[in-house]
Amino acid sequence: MTLPDVTGIPFGGDYNPEQWDETVWDADYRAFDLARIDLLTVGVFTWALTQPAEDVYDFSTIERILDRARAEGRNVCLATGTAAVPPWLARQHPDVCRTDFEGRRHVFGVRHNACASSPTYRRLAAEVAGRLAERFANHPAIVAWHINNEYGGLCYCELCAREFRAWLRERYGSLDRLNAAWNTTFWSHRFGDWDEIVPPNMLSEHWRGPNHTAFQGITLDYHRFNTDNILRTYREEKDAIRVHSDLPATTNMMAIYRHLDYHRWAPHLDFASWDNYPTDGSPVSRMALSHSLMRGLKDGQPFWLMEQTPTMTATRDFNPVKRPGIMRLWSWQAIAHGSDSVLFFQMRHSKGASEKYHGAILNHAGRTDTRSFLEVAALGEELERVGDRLQDSRTPARVALLFDWDSWWALEISDGYSRAVGYEKQVVSYYEALWQAGAIVDVVPVTADFSGYDVVVAPLLHMLKGDTAERLEDVARRGGTVLTTVMSGRVDEDDNAFLMDVPGPLGALLGVRVDETDSLPSDVSQPVVLSASGSPELTATATHLFDVLLPQGAEAVATYTEDFYAGTPAVTRNAFGEGEGWYVATCLDQPGVDWVVRRVLERHGLVGPFSDVRDLEHTVRAIDGRRYEFVLNHAGQEVSVEAPFSGTDILTGRTISVGEVLQLAPADVLVVETV
Amino acid sequence: MTLPDVTGIPFGGDYNPEQWDETVWDADYRAFDLARIDLLTVGVFTWALTQPAEDVYDFSTIERILDRARAEGRNVCLATGTAAVPPWLARQHPDVCRTDFEGRRHVFGVRHNACASSPTYRRLAAEVAGRLAERFANHPAIVAWHINNEYGGLCYCELCAREFRAWLRERYGSLDRLNAAWNTTFWSHRFGDWDEIVPPNMLSEHWRGPNHTAFQGITLDYHRFNTDNILRTYREEKDAIRVHSDLPATTNMMAIYRHLDYHRWAPHLDFASWDNYPTDGSPVSRMALSHSLMRGLKDGQPFWLMEQTPTMTATRDFNPVKRPGIMRLWSWQAIAHGSDSVLFFQMRHSKGASEKYHGAILNHAGRTDTRSFLEVAALGEELERVGDRLQDSRTPARVALLFDWDSWWALEISDGYSRAVGYEKQVVSYYEALWQAGAIVDVVPVTADFSGYDVVVAPLLHMLKGDTAERLEDVARRGGTVLTTVMSGRVDEDDNAFLMDVPGPLGALLGVRVDETDSLPSDVSQPVVLSASGSPELTATATHLFDVLLPQGAEAVATYTEDFYAGTPAVTRNAFGEGEGWYVATCLDQPGVDWVVRRVLERHGLVGPFSDVRDLEHTVRAIDGRRYEFVLNHAGQEVSVEAPFSGTDILTGRTISVGEVLQLAPADVLVVETV
Amino acid sequence: MTLPDVTGIPFGGDYNPEQWDETVWDADYRAFDLARIDLLTVGVFTWALTQPAEDVYDFSTIERILDRARAEGRNVCLATGTAAVPPWLARQHPDVCRTDFEGRRHVFGVRHNACASSPTYRRLAAEVAGRLAERFANHPAIVAWHINNEYGGLCYCELCAREFRAWLRERYGSLDRLNAAWNTTFWSHRFGDWDEIVPPNMLSEHWRGPNHTAFQGITLDYHRFNTDNILRTYREEKDAIRVHSDLPATTNMMAIYRHLDYHRWAPHLDFASWDNYPTDGSPVSRMALSHSLMRGLKDGQPFWLMEQTPTMTATRDFNPVKRPGIMRLWSWQAIAHGSDSVLFFQMRHSKGASEKYHGAILNHAGRTDTRSFLEVAALGEELERVGDRLQDSRTPARVALLFDWDSWWALEISDGYSRAVGYEKQVVSYYEALWQAGAIVDVVPVTADFSGYDVVVAPLLHMLKGDTAERLEDVARRGGTVLTTVMSGRVDEDDNAFLMDVPGPLGALLGVRVDETDSLPSDVSQPVVLSASGSPELTATATHLFDVLLPQGAEAVATYTEDFYAGTPAVTRNAFGEGEGWYVATCLDQPGVDWVVRRVLERHGLVGPFSDVRDLEHTVRAIDGRRYEFVLNHAGQEVSVEAPFSGTDILTGRTISVGEVLQLAPADVLVVETV
Repeated sequence: MTLPDVTGIPFGGDYNPEQWDETVWDADYRAFDLARIDLLTVGVFTWALTQPAEDVYDFSTIERILDRARAEGRNVCLATGTAAVPPWLARQHPDVCRTDFEGRRHVFGVRHNACASSPTYRRLAAEVAGRLAERFANHPAIVAWHINNEYGGLCYCELCAREFRAWLRERYGSLDRLNAAWNTTFWSHRFGDWDEIVPPNMLSEHWRGPNHTAFQGITLDYHRFNTDNILRTYREEKDAIRVHSDLPATTNMMAIYRHLDYHRWAPHLDFASWDNYPTDGSPVSRMALSHSLMRGLKDGQPFWLMEQTPTMTATRDFNPVKRPGIMRLWSWQAIAHGSDSVLFFQMRHSKGASEKYHGAILNHAGRTDTRSFLEVAALGEELERVGDRLQDSRTPARVALLFDWDSWWALEISDGYSRAVGYEKQVVSYYEALWQAGAIVDVVPVTADFSGYDVVVAPLLHMLKGDTAERLEDVARRGGTVLTTVMSGRVDEDDNAFLMDVPGPLGALLGVRVDETDSLPSDVSQPVVLSASGSPELTATATHLFDVLLPQGAEAVATYTEDFYAGTPAVTRNAFGEGEGWYVATCLDQPGVDWVVRRVLERHGLVGPFSDVRDLEHTVRAIDGRRYEFVLNHAGQEVSVEAPFSGTDILTGRTISVGEVLQLAPADVLVVETV
Repeated sequence: MTLPDVTGIPFGGDYNPEQWDETVWDADYRAFDLARIDLLTVGVFTWALTQPAEDVYDFSTIERILDRARAEGRNVCLATGTAAVPPWLARQHPDVCRTDFEGRRHVFGVRHNACASSPTYRRLAAEVAGRLAERFANHPAIVAWHINNEYGGLCYCELCAREFRAWLRERYGSLDRLNAAWNTTFWSHRFGDWDEIVPPNMLSEHWRGPNHTAFQGITLDYHRFNTDNILRTYREEKDAIRVHSDLPATTNMMAIYRHLDYHRWAPHLDFASWDNYPTDGSPVSRMALSHSLMRGLKDGQPFWLMEQTPTMTATRDFNPVKRPGIMRLWSWQAIAHGSDSVLFFQMRHSKGASEKYHGAILNHAGRTDTRSFLEVAALGEELERVGDRLQDSRTPARVALLFDWDSWWALEISDGYSRAVGYEKQVVSYYEALWQAGAIVDVVPVTADFSGYDVVVAPLLHMLKGDTAERLEDVARRGGTVLTTVMSGRVDEDDNAFLMDVPGPLGALLGVRVDETDSLPSDVSQPVVLSASGSPELTATATHLFDVLLPQGAEAVATYTEDFYAGTPAVTRNAFGEGEGWYVATCLDQPGVDWVVRRVLERHGLVGPFSDVRDLEHTVRAIDGRRYEFVLNHAGQEVSVEAPFSGTDILTGRTISVGEVLQLAPADVLVVETV
Repeated sequence: MTLPDVTGIPFGGDYNPEQWDETVWDADYRAFDLARIDLLTVGVFTWALTQPAEDVYDFSTIERILDRARAEGRNVCLATGTAAVPPWLARQHPDVCRTDFEGRRHVFGVRHNACASSPTYRRLAAEVAGRLAERFANHPAIVAWHINNEYGGLCYCELCAREFRAWLRERYGSLDRLNAAWNTTFWSHRFGDWDEIVPPNMLSEHWRGPNHTAFQGITLDYHRFNTDNILRTYREEKDAIRVHSDLPATTNMMAIYRHLDYHRWAPHLDFASWDNYPTDGSPVSRMALSHSLMRGLKDGQPFWLMEQTPTMTATRDFNPVKRPGIMRLWSWQAIAHGSDSVLFFQMRHSKGASEKYHGAILNHAGRTDTRSFLEVAALGEELERVGDRLQDSRTPARVALLFDWDSWWALEISDGYSRAVGYEKQVVSYYEALWQAGAIVDVVPVTADFSGYDVVVAPLLHMLKGDTAERLEDVARRGGTVLTTVMSGRVDEDDNAFLMDVPGPLGALLGVRVDETDSLPSDVSQPVVLSASGSPELTATATHLFDVLLPQGAEAVATYTEDFYAGTPAVTRNAFGEGEGWYVATCLDQPGVDWVVRRVLERHGLVGPFSDVRDLEHTVRAIDGRRYEFVLNHAGQEVSVEAPFSGTDILTGRTISVGEVLQLAPADVLVVETV
């Protein structure tokens, strides 16, 4: 089972005509025609509509929407609509409502409001999904199933407590094993009965907030349990659909989303899809990282960009409009990194409630002459011209960045060494360095096959599970380079410290021993002198964490110059087999990370052709001997580069020859099919 | 029914002698004599005293206080004392306690602690008010009734849920109408039964806090309901009093207070009164705005300044003493804007609990030689000299500022465009501009009669209800000027977006169409060049919100100069009938707002005589052919101006002639009866 | 009953070998040998181990630990282990769990989690302590009992409500007396039944947080009650131990810890002990103050430093390692101020949960060649050399600093004058001035005998209880100096304002009257000119609070120079008897406080020998005619001073002569036995 069977690049997105009069539907489709919109996501929040009471199902409105879509020649991605429970359900079955981190049971309201442990919710959500599939399995408009919406959050109710205990029994088998895993001899926590275990929240193990727990093992396992528990509801809906339909199913994910370990979800998705709402101020490379993380879920298979806003969001404190050209630029960026679709939330503004000011293709006046609409329509025309060429093509990466939810959780819920070091920020920083250097990168789980990679970068690999250390050694042994950082190799799968020198099982590969780790306030920094050649090349700024290293074979690539560890190594390189193990013993600023990452890439000739031009992105998709070079100008100004390839820009039809000077206007995009 | 029947300007305030021994009362009255105090507000928190148990009423202490006041020749404003429930009531009837926004039911404590939906509270509060009135209706000391105290807050209990549903049935008639108003098709919210509706708080529709709701319509209606629900308790007490007494009744309000729409209260107040505790750092003009808002409740009828501190507050993080002369200056400011009283909280410091450090006329030692007491006594003497002259005089305003609680609520609970734009701040900014320009301004509801005004200023008129747009058009049609701003004309009474071009029904008057609205972080600004003459006159700074306008007849008065909307209009003026409609498409800094407002006032010759002197306030009260020009020096330094009028300063008896140079010391006050 | 009977300076600390395999114990003791560790604190969190179920006690692991300690020649301080309830107890008896300030009942988790009002907890905690004592009373390893651990926190459950009422009955006898004490006529709070009283939290009297209460008297009494209520559980454990053992008992306190008034605990401690985890960034003098506060509990008797980290903490946002030499320096500082031990938390890193990254003598690899271990071992060797010489010696102080929990609580829960003025910060500031000046200082309760002191410094003596004012007058009368500050002498023991001129009963001693007190935002300051000689000597900066004084005999030592109180006194000195009363009417910056404190010390010749060298600490311990001068270099750089004494440095054996130049390296320590 793989991607939906469509032609060209699906263009369109969330369409909720149940919110307005059918007489408006005509205007909708006239606008869709103008914008070449060919795919509609239907029914995302329709449970109260399709099941107005426990014993009443009514799919007639959905049917009219599907029929009209079919009549107008549009494809539909049909949602099960279960991401917000109807009012009657919350009232009649309060167990479907969540209990929050503060221990408060909620009542009806908002969305994403169901407890995944509730038997009522599970039964009724699967039931409505199954009935929907039964009714529309053979509707010719439908090309895919969209289960629920942006799964997430946590619940701490009694039902969750029960499910958590069952999950723990399954994981640990015995209380002895659990007590060992959680180190419960500490602080008088030895559990003598499964029922003594309660969910870790502000009424039990936590203080100050979700990251401050007295027992890391319990909180970590609750995150794992939560991932599996919510995944179960997805699987139950999918199973109910499978009875009637074999069309591919997905759910729209949120990429770098802390609450769910999507690597555990991957096997159950026919294809991955996600919603791209970048936080204002985050680097462009973070979107590339997100796309790559999603592409990595299904081993490089293309994914769908399920949502993005055509112009602005609404939930933020401020919501800038996308500047001219940016919506197109980011749409092409998604494709460049493996998306096979360009979809939006949403087709038309809702008139009321919390998304009435969220961007849409049609505004409240339904205009097709706004700046925003005109840019969407122009992109629709462009995508139509490109057609099927890129479909199912792959990214030929020789660099892997490891992304590990367990390390994310374990690191950030630890007491000590530093609360200021966030997993996401460090991972984004290392990816940014790779991106600016023009490396083509896969983002993969620690369990991935590393054999295709020359370079493996693993920032903050806090938890080392299974044979990861051995497999990283293999990379170096055969000539590759492994790069990791401070706080790596600290704990095992149970979040217990390795009873050996830090960095634990990575010690041999990295050739260092950590004698102690200093931690300083965020406003304090230490200079670090970087030097691959022997003479100083860059002075970078280090913050937060400072390992004091005793090299065990590694050589210093950078050195602290102040405080009592002045003169000791801050970055090391260790020869291992035919390759190298690099260790960054502190949190370097971006120039520092850039420097280190380029030295590693240079060793393998993996620095890209535009690495000297900031924010000029380059990546590649290839299929069946065809190769597409994407060049995207995020620099905010015109840039000139020499073409490193020859071929044809499939957006304009223009021929490009090696060595030719390419002028890229701000937000310009080239997609060159090389020869 | 109108103001209390008193002579002169009532001077005095809250007096709680039940807190100390009767032997101290002698000292109280000796001090009152020194300070010419002639009005005492009695009994504000006496419920535990007057009703020590459910079946016991005891008014004997109140009677002794009243008798003594009468014997000493003082008038009394008698409070019903119901703003804090007694301990026995909270314990025996827990339903009188509130459930807070977090869903937590409270127990006994603090004040302003009663649920307005509690039948027990309603019954017993009205009962004690009625008995008090029965007992003292004919007591000769009493001149007015003071019901409860500083009503406010919200409750979210089950009783409130029930009352809310009843209120909704009354408002909407049917669930279909309610579902349409709240746009419940969005996010699966369609209600099939009234009982499915729950109060919107952190356990239901809200996230992050009171302004972040998933359903604006529900939260907005809860604010409206809360206003009406609390008003009902006021009305029930007033009705109970009316059985026995026809003396005027009021409650002390808080002017720019977000939780209660005082315009809905106005019909039920015999006269308005309020407590002036300006936040440190707020502009002086905000007090003028507050006074004018209170004056506007009863169509220009004078109000009472019910409370102010003689020196410092206690509840703030820091509590500066009023500098020498400031207490007098602000007292006269209140009178200048329509107060017919000068009252204080409080006569004597309480010895314990949370107001023991709140300013009072007599300190803990009971001294009459403190700086503070001496200033109070001097003011008492001055007011005595002025006597009745100003009583019931009116403010001859030709400018109206619209103040609309619905717009306040709707704007600030919206998701998008910007969380940083607050209603109060913008309204204060426009009022500040009017105030510095010396305009004489009424502050009125959107339902007011606009026919007497040349200029109507309506910042952030987010919600357009009923025929407001037409009546604003009328103002311009007959030659007046209407000025409004970004985020105006967006939603109807149900908080649903107008399905037309922005600014909705104001489009014709303003002659513009908003193509999109950009929103930027608070630390980002855009320069705007203002130019009425055609050549640049001022470069102002714009922040937060930036409409991109497509003029439909209006001309640009100001222009953006940066970003992708450089060169497009930021302020426009549209000829409409004999008059003009002005639109400010962004949030201008104060110099920008000042510039725009002065251009508008100049058109009508409404710039005041001292508009070139910052913080020199000027306003007017007039009655029966007499006209009083108030000049108040808030500048903190001496200023010199030419007298624009001739007459007699009624504070000093000094004669003033047109053209004479007036030297005003810091905090100086002139009240010139002109000839 | 006094200190444990040991030889030398006990060195070691918390040892939890129950957390690891017995095979590791060998390595533990080999390391202890290397580091001269001779005292182990055992069993601090062992309740789940010693009582795995309600009817099962199992002391076998403890016994093996004790036997091995004995066999290895180590002493043990044996803990009762009751500071964290076992899971089964929380589950079977939910009443042992606390209800927090928000009114939420907690379930099992964290530590320090028991409600001190719970009869179940009280019964079972005393029972396990008693059985432990019964079993090991005669075990030769044991030298002291360690009851519970770091008592603290508050609970607000129904059981606490009941105990609080009982405590109030005991304190006040009648409701009339209670109503008077709490001034309940204010805000309708008069209680008619004890059962109407509820604990003051966010569901009752509080708003915004723990320091914001409507009724100061209730909240203040709840703090007092809480101190007594938790103390009762300590006493019950101690009583249970006393049945079987006469060895000295203590609990590890936290010195400047707001929730418990340790002066009420002092009579029940055989010896004081505390845990020194200084907040990063706090001045070194704060540790000296803390040590002195602990020494003051038992009238100058030495205490035990029960815990400190050898290197870093884990619970903070950042956790710096102690720089080279600092662990030794701070250990000697503890001894210098009266500690008779040097103990650490902990001997070996735990492998999991929230302290896995907390510093320990042995790291996860068990290494004895880390920087940290080597410094510990060197200190062990040094302490062994010093031996018994310092044991039980005393601090010859002639200066007392008053420390008063009632004033701390009362001041910080007051509404007005300023929320920004914290008790701890001001007390630390005055102590810092004394410390930099080299004064030898006792820190004592207001009830202490002042007759031995020349100088009594009492910052923020907000509450004046009993005969404190008279006893302070006595100090001055006989020639001493009393120094106090703004916000002193305001309230009586019930937190009711004195009905007299401020500073209340201190007026005669200080010779001033406060006419008013201004309070300004934290970012506003006023210059103050200090001048003892008549000509200006220093311009200091004053903030937050500004009394406007009317001297009643006192002379100005410093003067405000701005605002409306320019020219009035900011610091005064009043001749009283043979001595003086000083009043600082504002919050001075540190140079200002330093200046004032030095003037006072100079009068008595109490400025120390190194007062010109910042951060060079000097203090003295003396016994039996022997006198030890401690000199500790906290300056972070080398300093040179002339020796003011002759003698022998007992750390090095080096002879020192008066007038000799002493070079002290950073972190250097001298302990000179003078001749």
